[in-house]
Amino acid sequence: MIKTIEWKNDKVKMIDQLKLPLKEEFFECSDYKCVIDAIKSMKIRGAPAIGVAAAMGIVLGAVNYSGNDVDELLRKIDIICKEMGNTRPTAVNLFWAIERMRKVAFSNTWGKVEDLKKALKDEAIKMADEDIEANKKMGKFGATLIKDGDNILTHCNAGSLATVEYGTGLAPIFWSFKEGKKIHVYVDETRPKLQGARLTIWEMKKENIPATLITDSMAGYFMKKGTINKIFVGSDRIAVNGDVANKIGTYTLAVLAKEHNIPFYVVAPTSTIDFSISSGDKIIIEERDKSEVTHIGGVQIAPDDISVANPAFDVTPNKLVTAIVTEKGILRSPFGEKIKNLRL
Amino acid sequence: MIKTIEWKNDKVKMIDQLKLPLKEEFFECSDYKCVIDAIKSMKIRGAPAIGVAAAMGIVLGAVNYSGNDVDELLRKIDIICKEMGNTRPTAVNLFWAIERMRKVAFSNTWGKVEDLKKALKDEAIKMADEDIEANKKMGKFGATLIKDGDNILTHCNAGSLATVEYGTGLAPIFWSFKEGKKIHVYVDETRPKLQGARLTIWEMKKENIPATLITDSMAGYFMKKGTINKIFVGSDRIAVNGDVANKIGTYTLAVLAKEHNIPFYVVAPTSTIDFSISSGDKIIIEERDKSEVTHIGGVQIAPDDISVANPAFDVTPNKLVTAIVTEKGILRSPFGEKIKNLRL
Repeated sequence: MIKTIEWKNDKVKMIDQLKLPLKEEFFECSDYKCVIDAIKSMKIRGAPAIGVAAAMGIVLGAVNYSGNDVDELLRKIDIICKEMGNTRPTAVNLFWAIERMRKVAFSNTWGKVEDLKKALKDEAIKMADEDIEANKKMGKFGATLIKDGDNILTHCNAGSLATVEYGTGLAPIFWSFKEGKKIHVYVDETRPKLQGARLTIWEMKKENIPATLITDSMAGYFMKKGTINKIFVGSDRIAVNGDVANKIGTYTLAVLAKEHNIPFYVVAPTSTIDFSISSGDKIIIEERDKSEVTHIGGVQIAPDDISVANPAFDVTPNKLVTAIVTEKGILRSPFGEKIKNLRL
Repeated sequence: MIKTIEWKNDKVKMIDQLKLPLKEEFFECSDYKCVIDAIKSMKIRGAPAIGVAAAMGIVLGAVNYSGNDVDELLRKIDIICKEMGNTRPTAVNLFWAIERMRKVAFSNTWGKVEDLKKALKDEAIKMADEDIEANKKMGKFGATLIKDGDNILTHCNAGSLATVEYGTGLAPIFWSFKEGKKIHVYVDETRPKLQGARLTIWEMKKENIPATLITDSMAGYFMKKGTINKIFVGSDRIAVNGDVANKIGTYTLAVLAKEHNIPFYVVAPTSTIDFSISSGDKIIIEERDKSEVTHIGGVQIAPDDISVANPAFDVTPNKLVTAIVTEKGILRSPFGEKIKNLRL
């Protein structure tokens, strides 16, 4: 599988997700501003991947400091952390990762700047390794929910490309397929940014997993027909009550799943849980540029001077979520205190 | 308002809907093969417009006959009617219009070919005039369902461009706006062919009706938020029990409407009712080319060599339809024998 992001020779190497699937192009960031641009422009996206990118971006900011003053470096790190936090508002993994880096920097006493730099670098690399490990665990746990002959719908991209490697929502699919289960995946194209058509179906093809691309508007048709019997998605933020923020369109799938008695599974590491919010209505929904709706691949599809809405995420209430798969195991609805207890 | 299709100097003049909204270009067909191509390629689309196009195409075939043998012309008309019927399978208005033309040709005795040609031409022009008249009636009836302050969602294009003029699903919106009601319209972009983004929002702009373009996946988000309080769509075929075939994605909106207690209105002339089928599961769903999903405006958005599904329509069961607005009045659910009785 392709590594979405890695630390290499004091640079951050990433695959350019805006160029997929037609070009497999990698790029390297040697300063933190480059990482900020990559997150904002969605060259890298997916909640866990954004978290690791932010952490590695902070390391870049630190290693590029050429002075010897620890306090000055800490002030610099503080500013970079704030800038990183302003890139995208919804995915909580971003803030979780920044917080971990802050903790390393500010909860210790440093004699030399080199020690601080090394500690930050170690933490970011550890975070990336932990991500892969957590994804594999989620894959293994989630695979117990998948049976031979399943037709699984997924939305957006919760695969390798949304993480460092292996994915969240797609991890149980990868694991099941490796186990030899005969499965088929329906992939929502996921307008406006087409992560399904550009990234998920590309990952399916790479792994030789049978898959069919559909438009978002076709999911209901196939559920009614009885073709789709399970839904697996990732998440950008989960509230303590089990409300789930994920890519716009996810809520619609959950409503359709309820109508057709189809289980609706969310797969996300515990770093996606926002323990500070009691319910999903407190999640800030990012509104992105209207050109994402009016233009596709540079081609204008709508008239000039029209009003456009472009919320990038929606919130699925806990009552529509069958289970949440984390690296610590499967939480089944009703969630009660189960999510809160994960923190203990 | 723009006339989508009209008979002019023994030619059929149409606006090229594949070039909208960036170019307002008209083209003329002087033979029936050109009309067949226009229907298949969706230069003209929308159930009522397809019906009138087929009728006018048949007239072209007749007027181009240069012989004097009535029987030979009738045989020619028979072949053209069959070819017209093979253009698109779902919209029943196509078959309804062909049947009307057949009836004129084959239920009368003709002395001269010129009389037959004239009768066919008169019938097609009458059909076009009746369409506009029916649409205005539906607009007036449907407007009684719209109140000041309504936020109305619509899907695909059921406007002027789907008919000869004035539209079906959008007719009550046009009428209400003319009456001075303060309304706002949410327009689903309607993948894969983007009739919402290309045609409906263009019609809204032309008429100065406040409207916002969204992706299909955002409809649920705005219903949950409480922003959308009514849904108006057209139809391609209605079964006697009130099951409604319409553009893919309509069924999903109806399920969402139920979840949010939002009225779901279908606006269609009685020519859209298929009195020969008892329920929607007998409606043939057109499967269109996969390139409509993998390419947008000539730009490839998905990898090569993948499996794609592209059903162009879905069927909404009658239990999800609040009311059907026809030119004869409003039928409210449950429909019972109401639809059947329209035939009497």
